Amino acid sequence: MGELIEHLREGLPAEAILTDPDVTRSYANDMASFCTAGAPAVVTLPRTVEQVQHVMRTATALRVPVVPQGARTGLSGAANAADGCIVLSLVKMDRILEIDPVDRVAVVEPGVVNAVLSRAVAEQGLYYPPDPSSWEQCTIGGNIGTASGGLCCVKYGVTAEYVLGLDVVLADGRLLKTGRRTAKGVAGYDLTRLFTGSEGSLGIVVRAVLALRPAPPQQLALAAEFPSVAAAGEAVRQIMARGHAPSLLELMDRTTVRAVNAMARMGLPESTEALLLAAFDTPDPAADLAAVAELCTAAGADQVVPAEDAAESDLLLQARRLSLTALEALRPATMIDDVCVPRSRLADMLEGTAEIARKYGLTIGVCAHAGDGNTHPVVCFDPADADEARRARESFDAIMALGLELGGTITGEHGVGVLKKEWLARELGPVGLEIQRGIKRAFDPLNILNPGKVLDA
Amino acid sequence: MGELIEHLREGLPAEAILTDPDVTRSYANDMASFCTAGAPAVVTLPRTVEQVQHVMRTATALRVPVVPQGARTGLSGAANAADGCIVLSLVKMDRILEIDPVDRVAVVEPGVVNAVLSRAVAEQGLYYPPDPSSWEQCTIGGNIGTASGGLCCVKYGVTAEYVLGLDVVLADGRLLKTGRRTAKGVAGYDLTRLFTGSEGSLGIVVRAVLALRPAPPQQLALAAEFPSVAAAGEAVRQIMARGHAPSLLELMDRTTVRAVNAMARMGLPESTEALLLAAFDTPDPAADLAAVAELCTAAGADQVVPAEDAAESDLLLQARRLSLTALEALRPATMIDDVCVPRSRLADMLEGTAEIARKYGLTIGVCAHAGDGNTHPVVCFDPADADEARRARESFDAIMALGLELGGTITGEHGVGVLKKEWLARELGPVGLEIQRGIKRAFDPLNILNPGKVLDA
Repeated sequence: MGELIEHLREGLPAEAILTDPDVTRSYANDMASFCTAGAPAVVTLPRTVEQVQHVMRTATALRVPVVPQGARTGLSGAANAADGCIVLSLVKMDRILEIDPVDRVAVVEPGVVNAVLSRAVAEQGLYYPPDPSSWEQCTIGGNIGTASGGLCCVKYGVTAEYVLGLDVVLADGRLLKTGRRTAKGVAGYDLTRLFTGSEGSLGIVVRAVLALRPAPPQQLALAAEFPSVAAAGEAVRQIMARGHAPSLLELMDRTTVRAVNAMARMGLPESTEALLLAAFDTPDPAADLAAVAELCTAAGADQVVPAEDAAESDLLLQARRLSLTALEALRPATMIDDVCVPRSRLADMLEGTAEIARKYGLTIGVCAHAGDGNTHPVVCFDPADADEARRARESFDAIMALGLELGGTITGEHGVGVLKKEWLARELGPVGLEIQRGIKRAFDPLNILNPGKVLDA
Repeated sequence: MGELIEHLREGLPAEAILTDPDVTRSYANDMASFCTAGAPAVVTLPRTVEQVQHVMRTATALRVPVVPQGARTGLSGAANAADGCIVLSLVKMDRILEIDPVDRVAVVEPGVVNAVLSRAVAEQGLYYPPDPSSWEQCTIGGNIGTASGGLCCVKYGVTAEYVLGLDVVLADGRLLKTGRRTAKGVAGYDLTRLFTGSEGSLGIVVRAVLALRPAPPQQLALAAEFPSVAAAGEAVRQIMARGHAPSLLELMDRTTVRAVNAMARMGLPESTEALLLAAFDTPDPAADLAAVAELCTAAGADQVVPAEDAAESDLLLQARRLSLTALEALRPATMIDDVCVPRSRLADMLEGTAEIARKYGLTIGVCAHAGDGNTHPVVCFDPADADEARRARESFDAIMALGLELGGTITGEHGVGVLKKEWLARELGPVGLEIQRGIKRAFDPLNILNPGKVLDA
């Protein structure tokens, strides 16, 4: 360990190297529950590309594992420390280098907070859509690492669709430039997309060229109350089949609605089995909402309440954004799942999850990016109760099994990390796993980049 | 060769194996000029995944190169045969397996023609945007291989953005499934995107899940005449900076306009230096066109002519679609370049190309996907004139050098193939090239998949 610190000091200033165990311990975990985490040997906080290169050269020379970190808001343990690792925190590399309204790109360092970028581009009439729930804290580097989603994806897609080019420091410290800042480009294999969602296991993103869009009009929302998740699922089917392009189409189940009311007295309808929120940022959102209201009613909605204005719309959105926090408050602990199914199977997924909750005798609240078929079942339990904790883990697995059975994926936007690596093998199958491991070896032959995550058994 | 055919016959019906040299020779080339092509040993036309697997197992067992082909409309020689190779033509695998309006996906075999799919989904109120110029002939498999673009990309993006999941037969015949049919998914590395644009060098796509969109309203177009390419470039800057979302923003230079008139008597304005075509498929296209017309006038347009209706709009579009054919008719041969620059540098690219034409004493017509900064300079020359042919090749290279200098890429949508592999090395740099070759080795250790293309020196 003395050698490691000494080596790091040759290329990093003193303030960029943290070794006090009380401090380094605070970098051990992201926000995932029940994922193993080790004790870092050192935390590094580089401010330049060269400093990141020095960290990776050091790690390669001494065969020390490196765990890259952003804001550690991840939900799969992908940023959890490994014993004796170098934590490579990118939060000090937080400059927005450029915003160009003609090329519609932003060039940023990885530590820029999502909300900071979103606000900066908004000032120029531009829009950076990806909006994970943690957008006020999470970093662009972390968003790229997990290929994060958010609420806007049903219309605007996920982070991956906004990453045009990257500068990446490789495991051995070499600097690789991928992609482009042009609107199109097909020169060579798409390495940009390969790094996006690779959870820090292939290289360290130190700079990103991001695509921007023109700012859309302010969105207007409605809330529709359904007597069953099946009816809400049918409404989602109809809305999408009729060619609507909502900027948001979210669902909260009864448990979630009540949890949000309990936490924030939002006055949401407690008798509803499923509350569907839809929004449009089109030129005439009221007309679109009226059409969607009709479809909701035809699908069996008890009541449809359109927001009067942007402020009311924001309130609805705020209720949705509170869901996870509200569900977390129900029991001492939660496990948040992230299963995405074809949107035509949404109701099957919700009904199956309710059945799983009954079977295991647990509270499982579900909020969902309904338009994407991306559900977040939140298993609420008490870890001090061994039997309940076992049931929680089993129900969590049963939810993923159900997702795969319905033609879905074990993770729509949170990533694999530590939490789901056994399930990844199941989703990919033996050929997929072998091919993916071949790619990992091509980038990281010494297996020093975020070992024990994603594909690493 | 006897052994090869015998081996192929064990898993393919007689009609799927072509060995007559007069026939196999006709499969030697795609539509690129001046790219080397060898004589295939055999052409195979499988109809099933198992048959493709048999071809690849045979190729691996006997170490025979395989060249996958679609409609051979490519412009970079990526589908050109290698001497003694197996041509693996996917055109008989041409079934549309599914179109789902709720999940907004189509599942297709690789030999489906782009226009056939586009029309089939349109019948269900859906839209498959990618529209390469060859859309009436080219196949989805070929589109995936080159990550093709088209006219609609400025609003709807390129092929890569519509490929959700793939079934791929690997070099050794194993079947790999990548991606998903869900709207979102981040389980493992994004292999779907890695195969898209890999020009048949990593595996054989045998099935694709494609994302669809709701059909937009019929687009309405205008034509604006500019006294200089600089003025047209400024109009493009303003249109994009003001947040407009045209469904088409195309440019034809003076040479192209005259060539189209000469071929089809379209009555385009011959005195213009640059004709800009803009279209909108928004709810109120006339209003959007009026705003764009104003920006064009402010940027110096001599005249702006809005189409009266959809029929007139189609006529303008048809003129643009004729550009390449019309330029090809000017001289015995052409070389079509495909340089994409940041759209803010479009005018620089166009002026630089005109300068190159003067310097080399050649006719170079340019049509461009202006909104994407993607230019197609077409070098017109007589290959029988050795000096002119040399100048043509040099000017073609000078155009790519200019593109890189302006922060662009050597290929926006046509791919690398044989034509640009030396330039790919230049664009990627030594680290990029080495990493990309590592990926190629991981998928194709025997280098039997489309050897001599893309990265293969």
